[in-house]
Amino acid sequence: MPQAPLGERLALLTDLYQLTMAACYFDQGMNEEATFSLFIRKYPKNRSYFVAAGLAEVLEYLSTLHFSEDDLAYLESTGLFRTPFLDFLKTLRFSGEVHALPEGSIFFKDEPILEVSAPVIEAQLVETFIINAVNIQTLIASKAARVVQAARGRPLVDFSLRRTQGSDAGLKVARASYLVGFAGTSNVLAGKVYGIPIFGTMAHSYITSFPDEIEAFRVFSKNFPGIATLLIDTYDNIVGARKAARVAKEMEGRGERLRSVRLDSGDIAAISREVRHILDQEGLNYVGILASGGFDEDKITEVLAQGGLIDSFAVGTKMGVAADAPYFDIAYKMVKYAGHPVMKLSTGKVTLVDKKQIWRNFDDAGLMNGDIISLREETLSGATPLLTQVMQNGTPLGPLPTLRESREYFRRQFALLPEAYKALKDPGLYPVRLSRGLAEQEARVEKELYQREMGEA
Amino acid sequence: MPQAPLGERLALLTDLYQLTMAACYFDQGMNEEATFSLFIRKYPKNRSYFVAAGLAEVLEYLSTLHFSEDDLAYLESTGLFRTPFLDFLKTLRFSGEVHALPEGSIFFKDEPILEVSAPVIEAQLVETFIINAVNIQTLIASKAARVVQAARGRPLVDFSLRRTQGSDAGLKVARASYLVGFAGTSNVLAGKVYGIPIFGTMAHSYITSFPDEIEAFRVFSKNFPGIATLLIDTYDNIVGARKAARVAKEMEGRGERLRSVRLDSGDIAAISREVRHILDQEGLNYVGILASGGFDEDKITEVLAQGGLIDSFAVGTKMGVAADAPYFDIAYKMVKYAGHPVMKLSTGKVTLVDKKQIWRNFDDAGLMNGDIISLREETLSGATPLLTQVMQNGTPLGPLPTLRESREYFRRQFALLPEAYKALKDPGLYPVRLSRGLAEQEARVEKELYQREMGEA
Repeated sequence: MPQAPLGERLALLTDLYQLTMAACYFDQGMNEEATFSLFIRKYPKNRSYFVAAGLAEVLEYLSTLHFSEDDLAYLESTGLFRTPFLDFLKTLRFSGEVHALPEGSIFFKDEPILEVSAPVIEAQLVETFIINAVNIQTLIASKAARVVQAARGRPLVDFSLRRTQGSDAGLKVARASYLVGFAGTSNVLAGKVYGIPIFGTMAHSYITSFPDEIEAFRVFSKNFPGIATLLIDTYDNIVGARKAARVAKEMEGRGERLRSVRLDSGDIAAISREVRHILDQEGLNYVGILASGGFDEDKITEVLAQGGLIDSFAVGTKMGVAADAPYFDIAYKMVKYAGHPVMKLSTGKVTLVDKKQIWRNFDDAGLMNGDIISLREETLSGATPLLTQVMQNGTPLGPLPTLRESREYFRRQFALLPEAYKALKDPGLYPVRLSRGLAEQEARVEKELYQREMGEA
Repeated sequence: MPQAPLGERLALLTDLYQLTMAACYFDQGMNEEATFSLFIRKYPKNRSYFVAAGLAEVLEYLSTLHFSEDDLAYLESTGLFRTPFLDFLKTLRFSGEVHALPEGSIFFKDEPILEVSAPVIEAQLVETFIINAVNIQTLIASKAARVVQAARGRPLVDFSLRRTQGSDAGLKVARASYLVGFAGTSNVLAGKVYGIPIFGTMAHSYITSFPDEIEAFRVFSKNFPGIATLLIDTYDNIVGARKAARVAKEMEGRGERLRSVRLDSGDIAAISREVRHILDQEGLNYVGILASGGFDEDKITEVLAQGGLIDSFAVGTKMGVAADAPYFDIAYKMVKYAGHPVMKLSTGKVTLVDKKQIWRNFDDAGLMNGDIISLREETLSGATPLLTQVMQNGTPLGPLPTLRESREYFRRQFALLPEAYKALKDPGLYPVRLSRGLAEQEARVEKELYQREMGEA
């Protein structure tokens, strides 16, 4: 049974005020072009960069957005909206343009991840979905990049699905972690939907349902000789390791090779050394050790520092909910309406007005050494502009890069970010400044607004 | 366009190992009845109870679970599975039984939220979805209950959608917060899907798109006189309050009443007193003050302690991701297979064997004063059993309570939980013990397993 397009399924996944404001604009005949900027206001603790992700879903939503008969019937049932406005919603489509950072880009606070320009009713209505879709993937990509860094080249697999915040997050975590270098995921649906490699081991319940542990190992290795990873901690890691070694020798007799054993509890660093010794004594130096159980960038760093002999990590909950920073202060703010730059002045939340561009500078070694946020119309010589137009008249401008291409793009960009900004604790603050054009525009608008709004009433 | 049933759409939303283990069981002709328990292993900081939520989705999934042609084609494409197993999956349906806590129940660590008994392949395959579905709603219901408590009767509205971890979480947060007493949500789709009251105010962008603030207020109040809540902090709270008061007087002239004003930034307690004074001076004592911006149970407590004059709170991100505890140590563990109680012995993660029941005791005043976890077959006189059967042979046993009924159920149960366990900081530890039958069973199985598994290899 085919699903409705994303933009129809989720047209009502919006805040009520988007619709009441739209009704006001409609009533006033106000539907001039508005531009909104999506950006993150501040860094969570120990963070100094973000990884842009989620653009494909935004474009799919925008290009298929429309209210179904069912949606309109629900809106009518609320008694809040008049018929002419509901008729207007019936034919509403997104007709605007989008400028965005490519998927997998490194970016910094205050920098627009994307800017939407469209008739104000459309540009406003899509706020909630756009923030939600970009937030979850950017949040997880930014977290998972830290885990990749901590693992220093060891393969990582996303095991978070059971504890992600809902099913949509489960898919998005698999995608975002793969984007920044995870080898794959345990999430089978993500494998199907995104073409991500899928991996798995076995559960304790599998072991306990057999009369004894070694029989459970034997059955699995016979059924899946190419991918067998034996979970050895159900009763005791060391006893389990000896049984796994025995099964590995049996596999050798059949011309097969055990892929790895999995540790899931206890003092992982110490146990891994003992298990390595047991395996090596049997000539099983090719059998890898996979560790799981509460891993994130900190625990990986710690286990490796303690001399843990781990070949790969399964990373679950703490990455899957970005446990140390489970949300970003991400906002989608109007910066221009009907040709006039606008801003709000609310305490501590001043925004950057007008349509913008981000320019990146590189040093002689090719490393990133500072960004400048400018008005979009400005050109800064010697720097590279980052935002590109990806949608016009509601239609995507050609296909986006594939997930694998974006993964490669991230890898290359991340290599250009100096180590100081990648530190897992107390990273340096990457320099981002405003162009003279933007700074002057900002000062001018702020002054005008104070004069206009504060004198009144 | 109708959606496929949940159990078909999400059949592949599972960990790969569920399918590889299933293939092993299938290969061995092992498909005896297994029982799994879903429970939470420990309390996050400052928590001492949980609120059960998500059962309806679990039952919908179980009763519609099947693999589509498309799913099977994907599984075949992985090259991991043989044809007989894929043919078996084609006709697989969930045929088991479920015992569960009613939606909105208060429960404690180690207590089963639900127990599934089914042929092991089925019971194992559904693990990932069941954990995911119960985790998100239980997580948020348990968090939102704290927010409700902090607000001491003031209405609360869920404004979290834009920053929930994905779209599914957005829906579940709206539902779970309503379950524990929120008045409603800004999430329009949740309003449609769950019949939850929807609320909204206006955005800063709405204000900034008008030539001046008061005109934006006037247009909104004319279009939505019954529900108008004017956002007054776009430029300055105090100036905004005076403008809102002027608009409220204009509304009075039309026989209408402004519902409220909204504060979204700055020193909320101090500003609310000033704004209250401005409104009262104009005889607008009926106009409420709604506060938003980073609220959770702690900030609500603080603002009220500082004498904030707030009539209602909009609660967003921190509740919507359960920011202080964004995951639970929730697990779904096999406790019985083929008639034999089973457990794993992994360090620090010993589980409670066998099919179980929870019994609750109440004191003379009717307040909860201790639970006992027993074998399911035991009867403990004087105590109330909490788990009831909700599914048999894969079919739900009658309709579940409606969301409103569950909301009322939670309200009544929560009133019976003594204050010591509800404290927002350093709550007491509610007494939960094992029945003699369960404790003896536990000891016996543990001893047998040590003897059987540790001697070998």
